[in-house]
Formats: sequence, structure tokens, C-alpha cells
Amino acid sequence: MNYFYLVPVASLFALGFAYYFFKKMMKESEGTEQMKTIAKYVREGAMSYLKQQYKVVALVFVILAAFFSVMAYFGLQNNWVPFAFLTGGFFSALAGFFGMKTATYASARTANAAKESLNKGLQVAFRSGAVMGLVVVGLALLDISLWYLILDRFVESAEPGHKLVMITTTMLTFGMGASTQALFARVGGGIYTKAADVGADLVGKVEAGIPEDDPRNPATIADNVGDNVGDVAGMGADLYESYCGSILATAALGASAFVLNPAMQAKAVFAPMIIAAIGVFLSILGIFLVRTSENADMKRLMSALNRGVNVSAILIAVLTFVIFYLLGFENWMGLSFSVISGLLAGIVIGQGTEYFTSHSYRPTRRIAESGKTGPATVIISGMGAGMISTFIPVVTIALAILFSYLCATGFDVRQMMSGENLSMGLYGIGIAAVGMLSTLGITLATDAYGPIADNAGGNAEMCGLGKEVRKRTDALDALGNTTAATGKGFAIGSAALTALALLASYIEEIKIGMLRLGQTVLEFADGRGAVEIGKAGFADFMNYYQVTLMNPKVLVGVFIGSMMAFLFCGLTMNAVGRAAQKMVEEVRRQFREIAGILDGNGKPDYARCVAISTKGAQREMLLPSLLAIIIPIVTGVVLGVPGVMGLLVGGLGSGFVLAVFMANSGGAWDNAKKYIEEGNLGGKGSDVHKATVVGDTVGDPFKDTSGPSLNILIKLMSMVSIVMAGLTVAWSLL
Amino acid sequence: MNYFYLVPVASLFALGFAYYFFKKMMKESEGTEQMKTIAKYVREGAMSYLKQQYKVVALVFVILAAFFSVMAYFGLQNNWVPFAFLTGGFFSALAGFFGMKTATYASARTANAAKESLNKGLQVAFRSGAVMGLVVVGLALLDISLWYLILDRFVESAEPGHKLVMITTTMLTFGMGASTQALFARVGGGIYTKAADVGADLVGKVEAGIPEDDPRNPATIADNVGDNVGDVAGMGADLYESYCGSILATAALGASAFVLNPAMQAKAVFAPMIIAAIGVFLSILGIFLVRTSENADMKRLMSALNRGVNVSAILIAVLTFVIFYLLGFENWMGLSFSVISGLLAGIVIGQGTEYFTSHSYRPTRRIAESGKTGPATVIISGMGAGMISTFIPVVTIALAILFSYLCATGFDVRQMMSGENLSMGLYGIGIAAVGMLSTLGITLATDAYGPIADNAGGNAEMCGLGKEVRKRTDALDALGNTTAATGKGFAIGSAALTALALLASYIEEIKIGMLRLGQTVLEFADGRGAVEIGKAGFADFMNYYQVTLMNPKVLVGVFIGSMMAFLFCGLTMNAVGRAAQKMVEEVRRQFREIAGILDGNGKPDYARCVAISTKGAQREMLLPSLLAIIIPIVTGVVLGVPGVMGLLVGGLGSGFVLAVFMANSGGAWDNAKKYIEEGNLGGKGSDVHKATVVGDTVGDPFKDTSGPSLNILIKLMSMVSIVMAGLTVAWSLL
Repeated sequence: MNYFYLVPVASLFALGFAYYFFKKMMKESEGTEQMKTIAKYVREGAMSYLKQQYKVVALVFVILAAFFSVMAYFGLQNNWVPFAFLTGGFFSALAGFFGMKTATYASARTANAAKESLNKGLQVAFRSGAVMGLVVVGLALLDISLWYLILDRFVESAEPGHKLVMITTTMLTFGMGASTQALFARVGGGIYTKAADVGADLVGKVEAGIPEDDPRNPATIADNVGDNVGDVAGMGADLYESYCGSILATAALGASAFVLNPAMQAKAVFAPMIIAAIGVFLSILGIFLVRTSENADMKRLMSALNRGVNVSAILIAVLTFVIFYLLGFENWMGLSFSVISGLLAGIVIGQGTEYFTSHSYRPTRRIAESGKTGPATVIISGMGAGMISTFIPVVTIALAILFSYLCATGFDVRQMMSGENLSMGLYGIGIAAVGMLSTLGITLATDAYGPIADNAGGNAEMCGLGKEVRKRTDALDALGNTTAATGKGFAIGSAALTALALLASYIEEIKIGMLRLGQTVLEFADGRGAVEIGKAGFADFMNYYQVTLMNPKVLVGVFIGSMMAFLFCGLTMNAVGRAAQKMVEEVRRQFREIAGILDGNGKPDYARCVAISTKGAQREMLLPSLLAIIIPIVTGVVLGVPGVMGLLVGGLGSGFVLAVFMANSGGAWDNAKKYIEEGNLGGKGSDVHKATVVGDTVGDPFKDTSGPSLNILIKLMSMVSIVMAGLTVAWSLL
Repeated sequence: MNYFYLVPVASLFALGFAYYFFKKMMKESEGTEQMKTIAKYVREGAMSYLKQQYKVVALVFVILAAFFSVMAYFGLQNNWVPFAFLTGGFFSALAGFFGMKTATYASARTANAAKESLNKGLQVAFRSGAVMGLVVVGLALLDISLWYLILDRFVESAEPGHKLVMITTTMLTFGMGASTQALFARVGGGIYTKAADVGADLVGKVEAGIPEDDPRNPATIADNVGDNVGDVAGMGADLYESYCGSILATAALGASAFVLNPAMQAKAVFAPMIIAAIGVFLSILGIFLVRTSENADMKRLMSALNRGVNVSAILIAVLTFVIFYLLGFENWMGLSFSVISGLLAGIVIGQGTEYFTSHSYRPTRRIAESGKTGPATVIISGMGAGMISTFIPVVTIALAILFSYLCATGFDVRQMMSGENLSMGLYGIGIAAVGMLSTLGITLATDAYGPIADNAGGNAEMCGLGKEVRKRTDALDALGNTTAATGKGFAIGSAALTALALLASYIEEIKIGMLRLGQTVLEFADGRGAVEIGKAGFADFMNYYQVTLMNPKVLVGVFIGSMMAFLFCGLTMNAVGRAAQKMVEEVRRQFREIAGILDGNGKPDYARCVAISTKGAQREMLLPSLLAIIIPIVTGVVLGVPGVMGLLVGGLGSGFVLAVFMANSGGAWDNAKKYIEEGNLGGKGSDVHKATVVGDTVGDPFKDTSGPSLNILIKLMSMVSIVMAGLTVAWSLL
């Protein structure tokens, strides 16, 4: 229990440093009056969007919380669930809000700093990104600590070992709150930002031939607002969810793996939290390591960033051994190697992403070259490359799953599926996911400073700060893209591992649901007799519910799960398409109707474009997000436990691969276009460039709306199933 | 046994009528000398491609057959396997060959007949399509009959009931031969046709602004050859495979479901064959019903086609009851309803496809409208619509699975997974697939005559037969597209159901493999003791191999299976992209270097374009096709039975949904373009039209290369796993 207090301490440390960096950033000058005004426009637009968004989402939360209260009233859930759910959503929203607030204050300051030097620009942008990273991990550990302390005080259980199972599975409901909030943030923000971006590009760049972020383009403010609500607030909520999800799912697995060993059980529950806490300290250390000499070039900056990330990663790998050893785990070596397999997997996936999406390598260059034969071949080759690129993450995750499982079970290959080993192995998989995300504080900082630099570039362009400044902010943005590839690898890899861990939590919750409804034994028809539920392992439940791959209910579930991934992407893609079309029409109308707009004399109506994106995003985000909540509930009622398990596995398999494909195709198109813009194959304005712009535009919803939302979708479907397990059990007993 | 002779009789009937229709078609005039010459060019190009293709594929077959012989030598398979495998491949190739031969003879004749009237054109094209339909079903039933008679004579088994299990599982290996051949045909043909098509369109239509099939376009002959090798020969091999696969898988399930009831076992094995045989007679009847008055309009023609298809479908539904009743099945009503659920599912999927891809409905019109904002929004909205469209086939197949399963087991919901019910239920699912494909003779005719009409149009264009003739062939083609939608629904739906049935055959083959290696009991660790393998049911094997959704090997298999679908599509998409680029460059070169080519004075070098497509297809088809064979083998060796089951389920879930998405997006883009070409939204040559041409071009590999190959991929992976089951078992015992 004493170890546990590291967690709230780390949380306060993270929040304290976040505040420190925020204050430091605020002391920088925001530059000229014009820069301040533009920044204010963007800030106000972003805040007003967020307010609108939170209103809609709050309504959804109130309805769901009411529903959970009814379930609790009928004994299908415990009474803490509605509250835990609400706090998860609240903290997730808070993380997005703080991150975005910081980003919108930082953009003009970064532009102003970039006037001085590249390094100065990096410092302001990166430290602001660090605020986001530290707020996310700080709030997550705060929420975890508070709920643990509350539930530890109030939850009572007669059976030894059962108390921690109750606590950890209840805490998963705040994971569901976080996931719900994150999905809305990603989908709403993603639609907003891409509608604005696509709209601005299609008319501005392609038709009118004016540069990006040109103040004559009416959609330009909306575009910059979009970067904040989508890439900053959306990503914040998303990673808050991933971080909490992996820790909570692993804690729940720890509670069940050590249910018969009360001495170790608490330690198994705390271990993921402690790894995360140590990760926070290392992240702060890493953030301070990101500094370089005043007149540093790109290469130096890059190595400064890498130094910060790598030092934290290596130290957490080393300290993991110490943590598991000090906690007194018998298999401390094995568990530590599980963590390392997770870390390594994240890095390999990141490198693979880099290879398939950076224009330093062949795949993206080929896409650029296919622009010679027009936009159609750009699309075909980009989709082809994206689909092929899925093999690296899949094979890596496959190896990480097997390796972390075997490490945790002492490489007992013949007996790897015995009851005890299954629990331990799954715990190993969970702990690998925690390892991947343990240094989120700094990896998120490297991810979040990109959009800040991007916005700074927008501000510089609109205020005419000159080419040199714009070039610097572009360089910072590009630098961020490279480190962000690793960050994305960690996010996507951890999602797959966490979703696996959540499968086990689902069974755990089914068990609790059965006990709550008074069922005490599992009776088998085939001569094995009965097993007491309290003593039953995962395998017993699989047998009891016949969750095998021959059960048609499982197979139907798999089909529906696979479909959910595609349906969800289809709905969000269409949403972007529709909203973007409205934006295009509006920008065309303004170019047509407002006199002198293109020679800089007429003033474009920015607010109208902001309103179109806001309205589009709000309207369009509801259906796909609600489907993610409703389909698992319906499947549970109609097809029972086997159907739900099939749904989750099908959604995980298809969703993971589809997410990688969309993210990588999108990234590769983006960079193929940049490759041309750097002067290759005819450069800007050539036909090849136009063809790659089409690819980039198609890639926008791929990589920033549908793709990243899939990670959350996969986990949210699992979380919903877990929270609704009581209903599924009750229904199947009817 | 007497019933069985219906099968060879039906086969001979089908082949006889195919010959009759072929002769009748050959009697038609081929038109002018120029028409004959063009047709000869296309025919020779197609035949020389096919020869080349068969050479490469024969090599693959020889290597695989040698490998199977080695396996047989070491007692890991029986001695019939290499031979069965080879005949499956041979007959599948033969079906493609005959179909293509007919099609290449029919095109000029159809064009010539269309000079006379629409109805005359339909008669020639449709009867030629019927040749293909009847050849496919005739050869399939011939192969099935021959092998059954041979194996019945030579296979010996001490245990009653075991003999038919041995026979049916051995026959599945010729299914693998058919699948392997089909995959090569689809992939090679698909790459060929789309490289030519995309290349011809990109330079001809978009850049030079000359119409489709214009003789000035050097790629135009290659394009017409492509229609034959891809859409005709590829489709023939594909559906031969689907047809055999569903019958053989169901027969194998019948043998195992009734293993303890020798009186009914033979009947359960024959039932799918007999349904197919009856379907052949009904198809021939239906083909004769497709006739109308001489001066019929489109609507009349449509209703003539529909009459043929509907009458056969309704009659087979009715006769199924009679068949099962006469065979003496206790649950004849239930099994018949299983068949009907399959038939209905095929129709619903077809209707759904029609809704999402025809420009009479909103989704496709919206895609056309999104062309107003350029090609990027066309791509985004087309992909969105395609992804959303997956929900109809998935929900339909889900219902068909549950319903056919429950019908076959007498709606015993509580006990649906008991040993006996599981076997019966799976048999029901298989029989639903057979029902779907039972009238393939006529549905394939309606599918195959489309490309013939398309080619006739090409011939008419190149020979300058005038707008009226071209209009008629276009009308025939469009008519074919509508009926083909239903055909595609049947193909894709039956693939999903057959793949499910093959899962069960895999377990059956594992059982045989264990027995062959001397293992006689399944020993369970958890106190259930041992079960004799001879008496063990599917559920016992699932327990023994721990094929549950918590087994990390299963989950890793699911990931890899999902990835396979994407990787395969990526490779084939890229192949088309690369080959098309080469074609574009060649066409551009010819336009540049051959003097007077565009004003009709210079003669384009058609042969060179044909050679480029041939070479591209041959080189590019190997990797994706071989992966489909190698990955299941490797998975079996590394991850054992649970890994393979995961692989198959993951591949099935993702592959099915991905296939629907790609087929429907591609179809919708095609028709969105046609909608514009009919004069809407600015018509031909407008910017909107150009934008939709980009969509159409991207859609080409979607709907004609990658999408349709996925159906085969799913089944081939299952077939490979089944044939390799002995190796997997032997390896796991090491």
C-alpha cells in the first residue's frame, strides 16, 4: 500500500510541472497586435467549439449515467458505476481543454519566438506540448488515485481477494467514461478539422491557387481552429483514454490473476500504476533534456528531441526490473521482459510507420511518382502502400502478444493455457501495453507540439511575418511529424494490447454479474460436473458459454465486429465529405460575392466558415459515436456472451488493421505531396503536384478522422460490453 | 446410391446443352471482314495470355503436387490427394478456357446481331453466357461424380461411417486445386484487365479526349483482351471454385454430422449434389425462358432475363422440400428452410448491392454530385458509401447463418451447441450455401453475358458500326450489370457461408490426421478424462486444442488473418497501379512517336500494349497468390490448430467485409461516372465528369481485381489449412 502513494505524488508532480511550463510559456511575448488578434480569433473559435461540443456530449453522458443508475438500482451493476463513468468523461474533457487552451496561447508566441531562432521556436512549442503531455498523465493518475482511495474505503467484500477485483472492475467504468468522451472528441474534432482543411485546400490551393493559411481564404481561421480542436483537444482526450485504459485493464487483470494470493494481489494491481508513476518522473526528466545550443540546425534539434524520448524509454526499461523486484514478484524478470516487449513493439511499429510514410523512403516516393499519371494512380498506389504497410504492426503486435504472454508465464509452452498461466499471461500482455505508454508524458509532448508549430505557421502567414519565419515553423512541424510517427506507433500498439486485456476483464465482469444475480456454480453438461464460480478460471467460463470458434453466435459476432470498423469509418468519411462540400461551396460563394477578396481588399467572412464546420461536426458526430455504444449492448442482448466476445475480437482484428491502413495511407499521401513541394518531379503547381494534392485531400479524413477514431472505437466497444455485462447475464437467464 | 446418378446425368446434360448453345452461336455471322479481324486480334491475344498464364500456374501446381506426394509418402495425407488436387486445377482451368473461347467467338457475332435488333443481340450474347454457366456447373458435377465413383471403389475403412468421411475430405483437395487455379486466374486476369483499362482510360479518355474503345488508342485491344481474360476466364474459374467448394464442404459436413447413422449418411453426402443437379435442369429451363418478342424494348428484355432467373430460383426452393422429403430426412422441413434462407440471403445481398451501386438511387447520385468539388471528394464519398454499404450483406449473412443453423437443428435454442446439434447446424449452413449457388447455371449466364456485350461494343466501335449498334450493346451491358448485381450477391454470400462450413471440415481433417498418426484418444487435463477420437465431436476438439477466444494463439491468428486480407489487396492494387503506369507511359509514347496516330493515319502498336499487360500480370500475380498458400502453412507450423482457426476466422471476417466494401465502392464509382455521361450535372467532358472518371479509375482494381479475389483468398486459405492439417498435427506432436 505504501508504494501506492507514489501514484498520487507523480500525478501532482506532473500537474505541477505542467503549470510551471504553462506559466513560462505565457511569459513569452505574443508579438504584434495583428498576431494577437489572429491568435485571439483562433482561440475564441476553438473555445466556442469546445463549449458547444461539451454541451452535446454532456447530454449523452447524463442519459448514459441515468441508464447506469437504473441498472444499479436493479442490481445489475454496483452503485459507484454512474459516478465513475462521469468522472472519467469529465477528466478526459479537462485534459483536452487544458491542452487546447495551452496550444491556442502558444501559437502566436511560437511564431514570435521563431522570428528569433529555430531553437527558440522549438523551446516554446515543445514546452507547450509538454503541458499537454503532463496534464494528460497527471489527470489520469489523479483520477486513478482518487477512485482507488474512495473504493478502498467503501467497498466491502467477505471473500479475501474479491475486494480488489470489485474495485478494479468498477474503476474500468471510468475508463468507459474516458473512452466515450474521447470518441466524441476525436470524431467531432476530426470532422471539424478535416472539413475546414479539405474545404480550404480544395478552393484555396487548387482552384484559386493561393498558398496555405493565406488570409484571403475565408476558411483559413476555421482551418487553424480545426488543428486545435482536432489535433490537440481530440488527441488529448484520445491518449488520456489509452493511458487510463491500459493501466485500469492491467490492474483488473492483476486482481484476477492473483486472486488466490492476497499477499501479491495488491502489488499486482499497483504495479501498472507504479510503472506509470515512475514514467511520469522520467518524462519530466526527458522534457528537460530537450535543449540544444542557440544556433542549432535541424539535425541538432532532432537529436535533442530524440535524446529526451530515448533516455526516458531506456530508463523506464531498466527501472521496471527494479520495480518488479522490489515489489517481490517471483517472476520479476519475466514480467519486466513483458514490459520491454511492449516498449520494443511500440518502437518497431513507429519505425515501420516512418518507413511507409516518410518521403525519405521508397514507398512514399513511389506514390509521388505515380502522380505523373494523374490523381487516380496516386490514390491507387497510396491505398496499396497503406494496405501493405499493415504487415509490420500486425506481425510486431503478434510477436509482442506471444512474447509478453510467455515471459509472464515463464515460457511454459506446453502448459501455456492452463488456468493460472492464462491469467498470468494476459496480465503480461496488459503490462506490455502499460510499458508502451509509460513515458506518455514526453512522447505526447513530441506529438502535441506539431500542431502548435503548424498553427504558429498559420499565424506567421496571416500576419505576413516573412518566409524565414514560416520556413522555421514548417521545419518544426516536419520535425514533429517524425517523432510523432513513434508516438502513433505507441498509441496504436497499446490499443491492440489493451483491447486484448479488456477481453479478460469482460469475462471477469460476467463472473461478477453472475454472482450478483445469485448464480454460484457453472454446471457443465458433458460430465465434468460443476465448478464454483468463485474458483472458476477464464477457460471454465469459455467452456460454459461455449465461446469457441465453431459457435455460430461467435462467428456472427465476428462478422458484425468487422463490419462495425468499416461502417464507422464510412460514416465518418462521409461526414467529412459532406461538411467539406458545404465549406467548399461557402468559400466559392465568398470568392464570388465579396468584392476584392482575392486582391486583399475585401474582408472574408471567417466566422461563417467556423460556423459551418462547427455545425457539421456537431451533427455528424452523433450517429457513429452512438453506434459504438449501442451495437455492443444489442449484441449482448441478442447473442449473449459468445456474440459479444466475437464482436470484440472481430472489431479488434479488422479495426486494428484498418486503422493502420488508413493512418499510413493518409500519412504517405501527405508526405508525397510535401516531397513534390520540395521541388521534386516538377514541384509546386505542376500537374504531378495537383495529382498529389488530391491524394493529400483524400488522406485527410483517413489519417485525422476515421483512422485514429478506430483505436478508441475498439476499446469503447470493449468498455461498453464490460459495463453492460450485468445486463447480458441477466437477459440470458430470462 | 441410386439418387446419386442424377449428378453425372445432370453434368452431361449441362455439357450437352453448353455444346448446343455454342454450336448455335457459331452459326451466326461474324459480320464484316474488319469485324472478324478485330475479333481475331482479341481472341489471339486472349488465348496467348491464357497459354502463358497456364504455363506459370502449371509450374506452381507441379510443385504443390510434388509436395503433397511427399506428405502422402510420410503418411501425413492419403495417396489420392495429389491427383485430386491436380484435377481440380485442371477442370477449373478448363471452365475458364471454354468460357473464354466462347466469349471471344461471340463478341463480333453479338455486335453483328445487334445491328439487326436489341433482342437479337441479347439472344446471341446471353446464349453465349449460358455456355459459360453450363460449362462451369457441368464440369464441376463431372469432377465430383468421377472422384466420388473412384474413391467409393478404392477407399476402404474398417469403421462404419468412416469411409464417407474419408471420401468427402479427400474430395476437398480438389476444391483446393480449383481454388488455387481460381486465385491465379482472378488475380492475373484482374491485373491484366485493369492495367489495360486504367491505362487506356487515363491517356485515351482523360488526356487525348478520344472515346472508349477508339481504334486510335493503342491500349484498346489489350483492354478488350482484358475483359475476356479477367471478367470471363477469371470469373469462370472463380465460380467453378465457389460451386465445387460449397458442394464439397457440405458433403463433408454431411458425412460427419451423420457419422453414427450410416443409413442417412450417404444421403446427407448426396443431398447437396442432388440439389445442385436439380438446379442444373432448372437452369437450362430458365435459359430457354429468356426470350421475348422481336421488337422488345429494354424493359421487356429485363423482364425476360428476370423471368429466367426467378423461375429457376422459385422452382429450386419448392423442389428442395421434395428432395429432402424423398431422401427421408427426419427434419426435411428444417433443412429445406435452410436452403431457402440461403437463397433469400443471396437475393437480399444482391438488392442491397443494387441500391448502393446503381445510379437510380441516392448513394451513387451523391457520389456523382460530390464531383462538383473535384476528384478528392468523389473518392472520399465513394469510399464512405462503400464502407457503409457493408452493413446489408453482413447483417443478412448473420441472419442467414443463425437461421439456417437453427432450422437444421429444429430451433433448439437452449441446446444449439450440443455435439449433435453443432454438426447438424453447420450442415444447415453449408446447405444454405449450396442453395444459393444451386441455380448457378443461369445466374452465371446473366453475369457472363455482360462482358460479351461489352466486347461486342468494343468491336462495334473499332469497326465503326455506328452509334445505334453501340447504343444497343451498351444497353445490353447495362442490363447485364443489374442482373450481375444479384449474381455477385450470390457469389459473395456463398463464399462466407462456405468458408464457415470449411472451418468444420478443417477440424474433421485434424481428426483424421490424428488417427492416421496413431493418436486414438483426446486427453483432457481438467478432470473430464479422455474421449475416443472416433467418437469426439467438434466441441471436444475445440476444448482439446483450446481454440477459445482467450487463447493468445487464436488472437494472434485473428490479427494475421485480418492482415492477410489487407496485404493481399494492397499487393494486387499496387500491381495494377504499376502495370497501369507502364501502360500509360507506352500509350503516351506511341501518341508522341507514331506520326498521325491521333488523326487515324498512323497505326498504333497494339501488340506492344498486349505484351505489357501480359508481362505485368504474370510477374505480379505470383507473390499475392503464393502468400495465400504459404501463410496458412506457416501459421499451422508455428501456432498450431488454434492459430490456424484464428487465421481463418480473422481472414473471413475482415476479408468478407473488405470484399463487399471494395466491390461496392468500385461499382458505385463506375455508375456515378455513367450517370454523368448520361447528361446529368454537366455531362461528358465537364469538370464533374473528369472528377468521376478519377473515381471510376480507382474503382477498377477495387471491383475487378482486389475485391473479387478476396472471396477466393478466404476459401483458399481454408482449403490449404485442410489439406495441410496432417502436417500441423504431426508438427504439434514433435
